[in-house]
Amino acid sequence: MIIDCHGHYTTAPPALGEYRDAQRRALEADAGHVGVKGEVRITDDEIRESVEGAQLRLQRERGTDLTIFSPRASWMGHDLGNEHTSRFWSEHCNDLIRRVCDLYPSNFVPVCQLPQSPGDSLANSVAELRRCVEQIGFLGCNLNPDPSGGWFTDPPLGDRHWYPIYEAMVELDVPAMVHVSQACNPHVYTTGSHYLGADTTAFQQLLMSTVLADFPTIRFVIPHGGGAIPYHWGRFRGIVQDLEMAPLEELVLGNIFFDTCVYHQAGIDLLLRVIPAENVLFASEMVGAVRGIDPTTGHAYDDTRRYVDAATISSEDRAKIYEANARRVFPRLQ
Amino acid sequence: MIIDCHGHYTTAPPALGEYRDAQRRALEADAGHVGVKGEVRITDDEIRESVEGAQLRLQRERGTDLTIFSPRASWMGHDLGNEHTSRFWSEHCNDLIRRVCDLYPSNFVPVCQLPQSPGDSLANSVAELRRCVEQIGFLGCNLNPDPSGGWFTDPPLGDRHWYPIYEAMVELDVPAMVHVSQACNPHVYTTGSHYLGADTTAFQQLLMSTVLADFPTIRFVIPHGGGAIPYHWGRFRGIVQDLEMAPLEELVLGNIFFDTCVYHQAGIDLLLRVIPAENVLFASEMVGAVRGIDPTTGHAYDDTRRYVDAATISSEDRAKIYEANARRVFPRLQ
Repeated sequence: MIIDCHGHYTTAPPALGEYRDAQRRALEADAGHVGVKGEVRITDDEIRESVEGAQLRLQRERGTDLTIFSPRASWMGHDLGNEHTSRFWSEHCNDLIRRVCDLYPSNFVPVCQLPQSPGDSLANSVAELRRCVEQIGFLGCNLNPDPSGGWFTDPPLGDRHWYPIYEAMVELDVPAMVHVSQACNPHVYTTGSHYLGADTTAFQQLLMSTVLADFPTIRFVIPHGGGAIPYHWGRFRGIVQDLEMAPLEELVLGNIFFDTCVYHQAGIDLLLRVIPAENVLFASEMVGAVRGIDPTTGHAYDDTRRYVDAATISSEDRAKIYEANARRVFPRLQ
Repeated sequence: MIIDCHGHYTTAPPALGEYRDAQRRALEADAGHVGVKGEVRITDDEIRESVEGAQLRLQRERGTDLTIFSPRASWMGHDLGNEHTSRFWSEHCNDLIRRVCDLYPSNFVPVCQLPQSPGDSLANSVAELRRCVEQIGFLGCNLNPDPSGGWFTDPPLGDRHWYPIYEAMVELDVPAMVHVSQACNPHVYTTGSHYLGADTTAFQQLLMSTVLADFPTIRFVIPHGGGAIPYHWGRFRGIVQDLEMAPLEELVLGNIFFDTCVYHQAGIDLLLRVIPAENVLFASEMVGAVRGIDPTTGHAYDDTRRYVDAATISSEDRAKIYEANARRVFPRLQ
C-alpha cells in the first residue's frame, strides 16, 4: 500500500472561493468585521467532479492508494482579517475535507488546517484541532509557523506561545505538518522561496528550542523534502556540534520527519541517502505547486513515486517510506 | 591551481571588534550619531598572526592556493546605525582586507563589503565599490539582499532600487556574491536558516525579475551551495514551466553561479549532478560557519576540497570548478 502524506484540496468547487471572496470584501469595508459563519453550498456531485479528474485520476495513474488530505495550503491565508475570519474559514475548509473523505473513504483521510491569526493565542486552533480529531475523525493538522505570511510577526516555534497546540497534539496523539500559506511579503514567492525557506526555518527553530525535549512524543513533518535541510545535513551536524549540543540525529530524528515532495531524481536520491528511511514519508503534494510534465523524463514533475521507485534503497526501506512510517506518525490512521 | 571563491576574515585582530563596539555604544546614546571615521590600529604583525594559524594554515593543510577574501559576513551588520555607521565601518573592513592581500599576495585576493543601510539608496555602495575596484584593486563585492537582517524592509532584488549597483557591477566587470549578514530577526539563525533562506530567496527574486535580461553580462554567486536551490532544481524547473517562462537553465545559467560550501559528500554530489560544472565555483567559507571535525570522516566539515576530489566528475570539470570558472566570473583576477 502506498500512502501519500501530503495532498491538498486545490481543486475545490468555486463556491469555496466565493465564500472567501465575500469574507475579503467584508473585511475591506471593515477590518474588524465579525459577521456570521454562513454557508458554503457545495453538492456531493460537485465534490465528486472536483476530485474525479484530478486527485483520484492521479492516484489511479500513479498507483498510489491513500492520500492524507488537507485544505489548500496557499489558501489557509491566516493573515486575512481577524480570529473570526480564520475560525469560520477553517471550519468550512475542514468540513469540506471531511465530506471528501466520507465520499471516498478508501482514497482520502483527513488532516485539518487551523484557525490561526497573527497576534492571537492558539486557543481557537486548539479548539478546532479537538473538534476535528475528537468529533470528526481527523488524523493531524497543518501548523503555520508564520501566520503573517512572510513577515514573522508571531514568536518562533520554540516560544511558549505555541505550547497549547503542542500539548493538544501530544494528548490527541496527532502530528503536525509545518506548512506556511500564501506569501504576503513581496520578497518571497509562495511555492518556492517562501515554502522552502519556512521549512528550513521551522526545522532550525525546533532544533534550537526545547520543544522536542519538553514534548518527547511530539511529531512534526517538514514538507517539501525538508526545505534546504537534507542538502545541508553536514552543515547542521556541524553547527550543533560547534555548540556542544548532542548529535543532530539524536536531537531530531525521534520527532521530525521529512516528506518526499522533491521533484527530480537527484533530489530524492540525496534525501534517501542522508535521512534514515524511518524518517521519510512518501508524498507528492499533488495537485499542488508544480503541475507540468518534465520534458527530460516525459512524466509529471510531482509524480514522486517514480523517483522513490528508482532510488537504490532496499524494499524494506521502501515499504517504510510508502506505508509503515505514515502509520507510525499518524497512528489514528489505523 | 585551486581558487577558493568564498573566504571571510573571521579572525581579524581585536581592534576591529573594538572599533565596532565603540560605534555601537555611540549609537546607543544617539541613534543618529555621525561621528568621524576614526582609526582601526592594527599592525602588520597582528594581521600576520591572525591568518598564519588560521586561513593560511588551512590553505596549506588542504592544498588550496588562493582565497577570494572578504570581510566577515556576519559582521557586516548593515542594520546597525545609519549610513555613516555603515560607510566608516565598510571602509575600515575593506582597507583591512586590502592589507591582508598586500601581505600575502599569492594567497589572498580582495572582495569588498558594501556600506548598505536599511532604507538608503545604493549611492554609498556604488561609491565604495568604485573606490575598491578602481583604486585598490578589488575583484568583486558581497551584496546583502536584506540589510535589515531578516526583516526584509528594503525592496526585493528585482526592484529598480538595486539598479545603480548592478550598473556599476556591469561597468566595472565585477560580480557580486549575494550574502546576508547577522540575523536580527529571532525567527532565523544566522549561519543556518538565515543564510540558506536568503540564498534561496535571492535566487528566486532574480529568477522572477528582469534583472538578468536587463543586465545580460551581470554575474551573481549564490553561496552555501545555492541554499535550497540545487536540491529543488526540479521544483524550480517546474515552476517556471508552469508560468510559461523559458527553461530554467536558459534563464539563469548565464549569470548565476553556485559555490561549493556544502559540508558533506552527499550534498556536493547532488550539487555536481544537478548544476553544470561551468556554474560551480570551489569554496570552503573557511574560517566560517562550521569549524569542527566530522566524526564520521575524521576531517573538517568545511574541508570541501575532499568532497569535490571524491565526486565522480571528469578532471576537466574539476579544473573548471577549481580554477577556470573563478577566473571567468572574477575576470579582474587575471
